[in-house]
Amino acid sequence: MKTQSHPHPKYCVVGATGAVGREALAILASRGVPASHIVAAASPRSVGTTVPYADTTLPIVLAEPRAARGCDVALLCASSDVARQLAHPMVSEGALVVDNSSAFRHDPAVPLVVPEVNLHAVQPHHRLIANPNCSTILLVMAVAPLRARFGLTRIDVATYQAVSGAGAGAMHELRDNAHATLHGHEQAPKVFKEPCAFNVFSHNSHVDESTGLNGEETKIIRETRRIFADESLEVCPMCVRVPVFRAHAEAVTLTLARDASVPEVLDALRTFPGLRIIDDRHANDFPTSLKAAHGDDVLVGRVRLDPSSPNPDRSRRVCLFLAGDQLRKGAAQNAIQIADHIRRPAVRVA
Amino acid sequence: MKTQSHPHPKYCVVGATGAVGREALAILASRGVPASHIVAAASPRSVGTTVPYADTTLPIVLAEPRAARGCDVALLCASSDVARQLAHPMVSEGALVVDNSSAFRHDPAVPLVVPEVNLHAVQPHHRLIANPNCSTILLVMAVAPLRARFGLTRIDVATYQAVSGAGAGAMHELRDNAHATLHGHEQAPKVFKEPCAFNVFSHNSHVDESTGLNGEETKIIRETRRIFADESLEVCPMCVRVPVFRAHAEAVTLTLARDASVPEVLDALRTFPGLRIIDDRHANDFPTSLKAAHGDDVLVGRVRLDPSSPNPDRSRRVCLFLAGDQLRKGAAQNAIQIADHIRRPAVRVA
Repeated sequence: MKTQSHPHPKYCVVGATGAVGREALAILASRGVPASHIVAAASPRSVGTTVPYADTTLPIVLAEPRAARGCDVALLCASSDVARQLAHPMVSEGALVVDNSSAFRHDPAVPLVVPEVNLHAVQPHHRLIANPNCSTILLVMAVAPLRARFGLTRIDVATYQAVSGAGAGAMHELRDNAHATLHGHEQAPKVFKEPCAFNVFSHNSHVDESTGLNGEETKIIRETRRIFADESLEVCPMCVRVPVFRAHAEAVTLTLARDASVPEVLDALRTFPGLRIIDDRHANDFPTSLKAAHGDDVLVGRVRLDPSSPNPDRSRRVCLFLAGDQLRKGAAQNAIQIADHIRRPAVRVA
Repeated sequence: MKTQSHPHPKYCVVGATGAVGREALAILASRGVPASHIVAAASPRSVGTTVPYADTTLPIVLAEPRAARGCDVALLCASSDVARQLAHPMVSEGALVVDNSSAFRHDPAVPLVVPEVNLHAVQPHHRLIANPNCSTILLVMAVAPLRARFGLTRIDVATYQAVSGAGAGAMHELRDNAHATLHGHEQAPKVFKEPCAFNVFSHNSHVDESTGLNGEETKIIRETRRIFADESLEVCPMCVRVPVFRAHAEAVTLTLARDASVPEVLDALRTFPGLRIIDDRHANDFPTSLKAAHGDDVLVGRVRLDPSSPNPDRSRRVCLFLAGDQLRKGAAQNAIQIADHIRRPAVRVA
């Protein structure tokens, strides 16, 4: 617990009515940040309404640059368009800006950061930091300690992605559609093109007609390479939605630069902050979406060697399964952690 | 439609009250097989009850060898233990026996068959045929035409498996657990160790403590190699349950022996019986679990090259996504197709 001698910074949460924004508020409330230290901003249609915060509510103010005035940190939990409009002006207002959107993820002037993995990418002059895509954050968390110890040449990953990545409306849609099916009615998709309850479908992001990659897969490839500063890393993702509310899971096969044993892999994972190993073969106890939901850890397990390995004890190919909360470590928690790690006294312009 | 000049064979369906047995009955009914041509057999606790069939019901008789007497085909839709007790005695009763369990899948005297893929494995003397594991059937259906055209050295596959593979009770459990969650109650797993609604979890089969592979993964590896008669084929599966009622999906990356282009791959898939291509990048229209449910086709799409391929037009690594009904092509339909293809006049002993 923070004490009065370590006063909380003041936060502006942009997109406070959305799924990630609400999660950011929940995390700040759980840390005991007083409501007086929070500015909740959103689009014009939400101005005048309130959002719950701890045992009170916060008024929604307009998401404009001056909403961040006097704030130490601005957490942009909105679209790329909103981020492009607000990020630099909010830096000018004196805030350290952490953007959850994809707007700046490949801007050379903006570091793309998972604190446990590449905090070294942040230089003293950086006042705008990009938060990676949710699937990428969870993936690089599990991969980073193995890459550091054994080297890495390739990642094959199939995702099992919660609907929360498509926002609060998608979570309502899963609930409504599941209810419809259980009562013998047709599902009525609005957020998604496909019915999302009791169904599995290729990720809803735009598919490049030339490569066949969808937007989520392209993000995983580009962001993973940027975070690891390795443009030669082979990344082969297949991104899929599953009827889960808020935690993503990923089936991962890594091709390491050197061969490894399962105990060595587990040892490397065990000492990495933010990972929790659940890997009990006897009890069939492994990471699941529900075990990861509402938690900050990335759960990792089912660690095993490629069964085609000629040596049963060591292989360059290692398989694992991971799960993490898409709204927390995949979004709001990582953004707040970034602010925790790199916040410095803000230069006030007002 | 069959005409009176092609009389239907007589079928004994063992396990007629289970998920696969009921599906077998539904398929036979849809083909117009008269109720008089069906013997519905099950365990002692179901004897005396009935199962629905077309617009009538069938009495359940005891699953014992003589239940198959006078039948042309016995479809064993029961456990491996039941199969071991009944398969050979039912052959002696004169029936062609197709077993859905894993009991005989690695018996050198019993061919393991997906008709479109390896009907050549059946010799004239074979009267007992093993039906492969559901995930394996769906996988080899999509892989076979590509293996035939380009050669194949490796399969990486992550599954999205419906609960139906764990039986009718699991389908009820998904329904009950989803209902509980929607009404704010805890899920109460019985069939599965994990809550199955709105969750993703590693496959519930036994995990080998030495290799870390679960039973489903081991089946995919061994059965795929046997069906393709290639013990050197590398197969690296990750088997996962998803909250879907009855269709499995699979994210597949193939390493071919020769490089291929996407048009060549689609061309090879398009001409293979039992496959249906759904691959519209512009419309984001691809196979889903729900599109596959209740159908006999294996749906294939999201065909694309490994994005790490140095040549954007050709690669030895090809990715695709498939979906197929676990109870139909993954079980009952494949078993009935086997009987269709290899049934010959039975030698009556009674």
